[in-house]
Amino acid sequence: MNAEIVAIGTELLLGQNVDTNSSWLAQQLALMGIDVFAFQAVGDNEKRIETALKLACERSQFVITTGGLGPTADDVTRKVAGRLAQKQLVYNETLAKHIEEFFTRAGKPCPKVNLNQAFIPQGATLIPNVLGTAPGFIVKVGKSQIACLPGVPFEMKAMFEGTLKAFLKNLSPSGTLIKSRVFRTTGISESLLNEKIVDLFENSKNPTIGVLAHAEGVDIRLTAKAASEAEANSLLDGLGKTVLSRLPNFIYGQDQDNLETIVGRMLTTRQMRVAVAESCTGGLISHRITQIPGSSEYFLGSWVVYANRMKSASLGVDPKVIEKKGAVSREVAEEMARNAREKSGADIGLSTTGVAGPSGGSTEKPVGLVYIGLSDDQKTHVFEHRFSGDRETIKKRASQAALEYLRRHCLQLPYKD
Amino acid sequence: MNAEIVAIGTELLLGQNVDTNSSWLAQQLALMGIDVFAFQAVGDNEKRIETALKLACERSQFVITTGGLGPTADDVTRKVAGRLAQKQLVYNETLAKHIEEFFTRAGKPCPKVNLNQAFIPQGATLIPNVLGTAPGFIVKVGKSQIACLPGVPFEMKAMFEGTLKAFLKNLSPSGTLIKSRVFRTTGISESLLNEKIVDLFENSKNPTIGVLAHAEGVDIRLTAKAASEAEANSLLDGLGKTVLSRLPNFIYGQDQDNLETIVGRMLTTRQMRVAVAESCTGGLISHRITQIPGSSEYFLGSWVVYANRMKSASLGVDPKVIEKKGAVSREVAEEMARNAREKSGADIGLSTTGVAGPSGGSTEKPVGLVYIGLSDDQKTHVFEHRFSGDRETIKKRASQAALEYLRRHCLQLPYKD
Repeated sequence: MNAEIVAIGTELLLGQNVDTNSSWLAQQLALMGIDVFAFQAVGDNEKRIETALKLACERSQFVITTGGLGPTADDVTRKVAGRLAQKQLVYNETLAKHIEEFFTRAGKPCPKVNLNQAFIPQGATLIPNVLGTAPGFIVKVGKSQIACLPGVPFEMKAMFEGTLKAFLKNLSPSGTLIKSRVFRTTGISESLLNEKIVDLFENSKNPTIGVLAHAEGVDIRLTAKAASEAEANSLLDGLGKTVLSRLPNFIYGQDQDNLETIVGRMLTTRQMRVAVAESCTGGLISHRITQIPGSSEYFLGSWVVYANRMKSASLGVDPKVIEKKGAVSREVAEEMARNAREKSGADIGLSTTGVAGPSGGSTEKPVGLVYIGLSDDQKTHVFEHRFSGDRETIKKRASQAALEYLRRHCLQLPYKD
Repeated sequence: MNAEIVAIGTELLLGQNVDTNSSWLAQQLALMGIDVFAFQAVGDNEKRIETALKLACERSQFVITTGGLGPTADDVTRKVAGRLAQKQLVYNETLAKHIEEFFTRAGKPCPKVNLNQAFIPQGATLIPNVLGTAPGFIVKVGKSQIACLPGVPFEMKAMFEGTLKAFLKNLSPSGTLIKSRVFRTTGISESLLNEKIVDLFENSKNPTIGVLAHAEGVDIRLTAKAASEAEANSLLDGLGKTVLSRLPNFIYGQDQDNLETIVGRMLTTRQMRVAVAESCTGGLISHRITQIPGSSEYFLGSWVVYANRMKSASLGVDPKVIEKKGAVSREVAEEMARNAREKSGADIGLSTTGVAGPSGGSTEKPVGLVYIGLSDDQKTHVFEHRFSGDRETIKKRASQAALEYLRRHCLQLPYKD
C-alpha cells in the first residue's frame, strides 16, 4: 500500500510554520510497511486543497491530511473532503456534546464557533479527538480514502495512535514493508565518514545506505525492504554490524536516539551524577539533559555563568585567572568543570566557555572557539574546539561535543580518535 | 510570478528529518511578491524526482529544489535536472578548484568523491556556495526554470541571499505582492482570542485574517495583496491597528519576534539586568535568553537547581521551607527568585519550580503545576499555573509564561488580565 500526506495551512506556504506533522506520520507509516510517495503542502484555499487532494487520491491509495479542522472561518478541510466524497456535512450531536464537555471540564463556557467542528461528512468514519475539539474522520474518494486529522501535533498524534493506526492495519495487506535503521554519529565529517563506508554504498542494494549531515553530526541510514519485520531486521542487523565495525567509536546511538537520552541511560546504569557549568552554551546543555524524563536521577543542576562576576561569585572561579587568561580560556574551562563537580558533590563536572558570536571574537580568540572541560575525581580534561556556523549552531555543536565527551567518559573510550 | 518548492531526500519521506528549508524559502519568496502554490517532498530516487519536477515545471513558473547535491552516490539532483533541461553534465574546472581549496583551507585533504560536485549541466547559471562544496545552479526546463540548492540549511540560505534572490528579482515583473504581518500573543486561548476578533474575520477581505495556535501562544496573521509594498503596508497598518486595540496586552510582538528577542530589547533599553533560577524548566529559559546576540549585556546567569541540595547549597533556599512546603511550592519559587536576584546583583530575579512530568505528579501537585517567581527590589511575586501537554510542552509553556511576566514587568502592565 502507498500513501501520501497533505499538509493544509496558508501559514506553511508563507513560511510562518514548519510542518513537523508530515515527518511524524511518515515515520509511523514506514514502520507499518506503508510506502510514502510524496508530501504536499497547500494553503487554506478550497480550490487548491481540492486540487491537491484530487491528485493525491488519483495516485495514492490512502491520503492523510493535517490541518484546517479548527473552529474558525479559514478552516475548510471538512468542506472540501465532503465535496470530494460527494457527501453533505451533517451536524453530529455526539460530537457537539463532546465539544461542549471539553469546555465544561476546563471550567470555561463553550464558544459558539467551536460547534462548527461538530459538522462532518455524512457516513464518515469518526476519529475521536480526546485532547481537543477538532474531530477527525475518514471518507472514501473513488478508489482512495482520505483521513483528515487536525494540525495541532499532540492531538494529531493521539488520534493516529488511538484510531487511525488500527484502521490502516486492517486495510493494508501484509506485503513488503520498509524498515530503516539510522546510526547516529558525531565528531566525524561527512566526507571522512563516506570514505570509511563508500564500498558499502556501492555494493549494498538491500539494505540501501544513505548519509545525512546535521549541525550535530552525520547520520547513516540503512533501509531494507522485506516481507516481514523479522526478515527486515535480519537484513539490517547484517549490514549494521559491518557499519558499526567501520566506525566503532563514532556511533553513539540509533534511530531517534539523541546524546542526552544515551548519556542519561549510561549515567543511570552507572549511578553517576553530573553537574554543569555553562558559559557560551548558555543553558542549552542543561536544557537538553532535562528534556529526558527521569533526568533528576543523575542531573544535579548547573551554573549558567554568563557574566564574569557570576563565574567568580557564584561558581568560585579565581578572578585573577579570568583576568590573566581571559574568560574564554583553557584555564577557566578547567576551573569551571572542577568547581561544578566539587560544589555540587557530583561525580562529573562538565563545562563550556567560548565565543558564540556574532560579536566578541578577536584574531586570537575567534568566534567559534570553545573550550570544553570534563572533571572527575582523578583529573580535569580540557578540549579546544573551533566550531563554524552562526550563534545557534555554535551553541548546538558545543553542547553536542560536551555530551559526547560525557558519553565517551562513561564508556571509557578515548575522548578523541 | 508563482513558484513551487521541491524538497529532495528519502530521509524526509521516512520522517527522519523535518524539512525547514521550504518554510524559509517560502518566507523569502512571499516578501518578494512571489506566490508559493505548493510544496512537494520526494525521496532520493531519480524517477520520482523527475516526476515531481516535471509536474512542478508544468504548473509553476519557477521551481526551487533543496537537497540531493552532496558528494555521495545517492545525490542525484544534478543528474535529473540535467536530463529535464536536456543538457549533459560537464566537469567545471573552476568548481573543482573551489572544492579543493575548501578542503585546503580546513587543513584537510580533498576526498576524491567531493569532485563529483564539480559536474553541472552544460550552460547552467551557477549559484556559488561559499560555505560548502555543493554548488547550486539554475537551468531552463520548457517555459519554467529550476534552481537547485543544497539541503544544508546554512549553505542554502547563503546561496539564496547571495545569488538567487537577485536573479529572481530580475525575472519577476513588478506585479501584485503578498505581504503578511503576524501578531504574536501568549496567555490567551485560541477560542477567547477568536471571540475578540471574529467580526474582523468575517468582514475583512484584504487583508485576510488567520489564527494559529502553538504550544507557546496564538498567532494572528494578516495577509494583504497589493501592487506595492507601501500599499500592502498601509492595508496591514489599518487592520493591524484594530487588532492591536482589541488585544492590547496580549500581543507581545510581530512576525519572527519571539519573547526572548522582545524582552532582550526592553532590558537593553532600560539597562536592567536579569538572573534566573530554574528548576522544572531545566535551563530552557537561560538557553532562550542566550540565543539572542548581545544577551550578555542584560543576562548575568542562572542557577539550574534540579536537586533539592542544589536549591539550598548553591542558591541558598532554606531547606526547612523545602521540607515543609515541598520543592514545588509558592514559597520555594519566591525564595528562588529573590535569591537569584540578590546573589547575582541583578535588577530582576526570575524563577520556576514545578512538575514537568511524566512522573512525579500527585493529586495535590499534578504534572503541569508550575510556580513562577519574579522578584525586584520592591516585591517578589509568585504565579501559579497548570499547564497541559507532555514534558517538553510543559517546559516550553512555563518558559514562555516566565518571559511574558518579565515583558509585562518591563512595560509595567498588569501581570495578568
